[in-house]
Amino acid sequence: MKPDEQARKRAVVLLSGGMDSATALALAREGGYVCHALSFRYGQRNAVELGAARRVARALGAAGHRVLELPIGELGGSALTDSACDLPLGGASGGGIPITYVPARNTIFLAFALAYAEVMEADAIFIGVNAVDYSGYPDCRPQFIAAFRELARLATRRAVQGRAPRIEAPLIAMSKSEIIRTGMRLGLDYSLTVSCYEPDPQGRACGRCDSCRLRRKGFLEAGAPDPTRYLEEL
Amino acid sequence: MKPDEQARKRAVVLLSGGMDSATALALAREGGYVCHALSFRYGQRNAVELGAARRVARALGAAGHRVLELPIGELGGSALTDSACDLPLGGASGGGIPITYVPARNTIFLAFALAYAEVMEADAIFIGVNAVDYSGYPDCRPQFIAAFRELARLATRRAVQGRAPRIEAPLIAMSKSEIIRTGMRLGLDYSLTVSCYEPDPQGRACGRCDSCRLRRKGFLEAGAPDPTRYLEEL
Repeated sequence: MKPDEQARKRAVVLLSGGMDSATALALAREGGYVCHALSFRYGQRNAVELGAARRVARALGAAGHRVLELPIGELGGSALTDSACDLPLGGASGGGIPITYVPARNTIFLAFALAYAEVMEADAIFIGVNAVDYSGYPDCRPQFIAAFRELARLATRRAVQGRAPRIEAPLIAMSKSEIIRTGMRLGLDYSLTVSCYEPDPQGRACGRCDSCRLRRKGFLEAGAPDPTRYLEEL
Repeated sequence: MKPDEQARKRAVVLLSGGMDSATALALAREGGYVCHALSFRYGQRNAVELGAARRVARALGAAGHRVLELPIGELGGSALTDSACDLPLGGASGGGIPITYVPARNTIFLAFALAYAEVMEADAIFIGVNAVDYSGYPDCRPQFIAAFRELARLATRRAVQGRAPRIEAPLIAMSKSEIIRTGMRLGLDYSLTVSCYEPDPQGRACGRCDSCRLRRKGFLEAGAPDPTRYLEEL
């Protein structure tokens, strides 16, 4: 750690390579935090995400970027990690919980962020969850974040010392277009990010999965040009 | 899964190979649960624990035993996982938090148990935390378990469907000797378990670390013979 970073407040930022967590990182940086990005390799089919996470971390001047290997995929039960399941191509994100839901994923990610925050003596953890355009996921809801915040107040040595990290979810009540406008105001280049559930090896998006559709709609509503590289003209 | 197991209630039981989690498994079995044991390989120096966990799971008739590899050790910050730290040999468990504390360990373990419980459609998660004789660990306290219970009520698909797993911590208010008496009543053979922070490759205990001292004291107070194999006559 450089000397001037020692005195500044620090944050652990969960970074997936998608647009939401990239925006959360941009907001943490704007908030004056020295940012330590944390990503996971967990058997997700779109491992291309991790390349995007690395580019975003670098572009936004993160002080570090750690990638941890997690055995979530071994447990099965999700289309995102289980190669036996087909991914939905449109229309599946209406009611109920999408089959791309991964059991307890954000609980696991936040638990590791909590451990990393303790080791790094971080003051905050940033997570880019968003309840508006992804309301199907139980662990993206405000009440879930509130419950984890309470847990973090109790779970660690630093918590006992009165220095539990704040759990920051700055996007939780934003629409996709608000997220995009926020990131653009902060100079974030969204072409670095990948949202598609199944991009090709070059990182080009299918344009048709639920995640692509939400992203395209977001740029449309934000009145901003969509820098996403799509597999074909749509 | 055998047909008769389908109808019975199921539990995920966190199993370390130590005496507390073995007792929690014995209690889950007594409670009528089909038990799915879950252990972790996380860079702990006493990997001999996992052999003990396997023997305990088998002896207590668990329906399965899953071992997941976790990168907790990579984060550093604990004498239990960080080979740069020396382990305490007696006297360090008085006030404060022992240096054997592993950052956010039980949060991480419970998060994976929650994911596994979702995939297995389990009705309960058992964890052998104990606040009486290990009060130094923040994530062994009743208020920590209560906070995780609240989180589990919100975090998963099954929670949204009103079927969140119960978080059972049946040892939380027991002394070590009460735990031992409970396990013996249930026919648990404690010679299968390992408590020592640094047993030799044959699983013999040092007899001097904090964990060994608590265990020996427990057998003394329970008025029961101590079946532990020690490295030398003490």
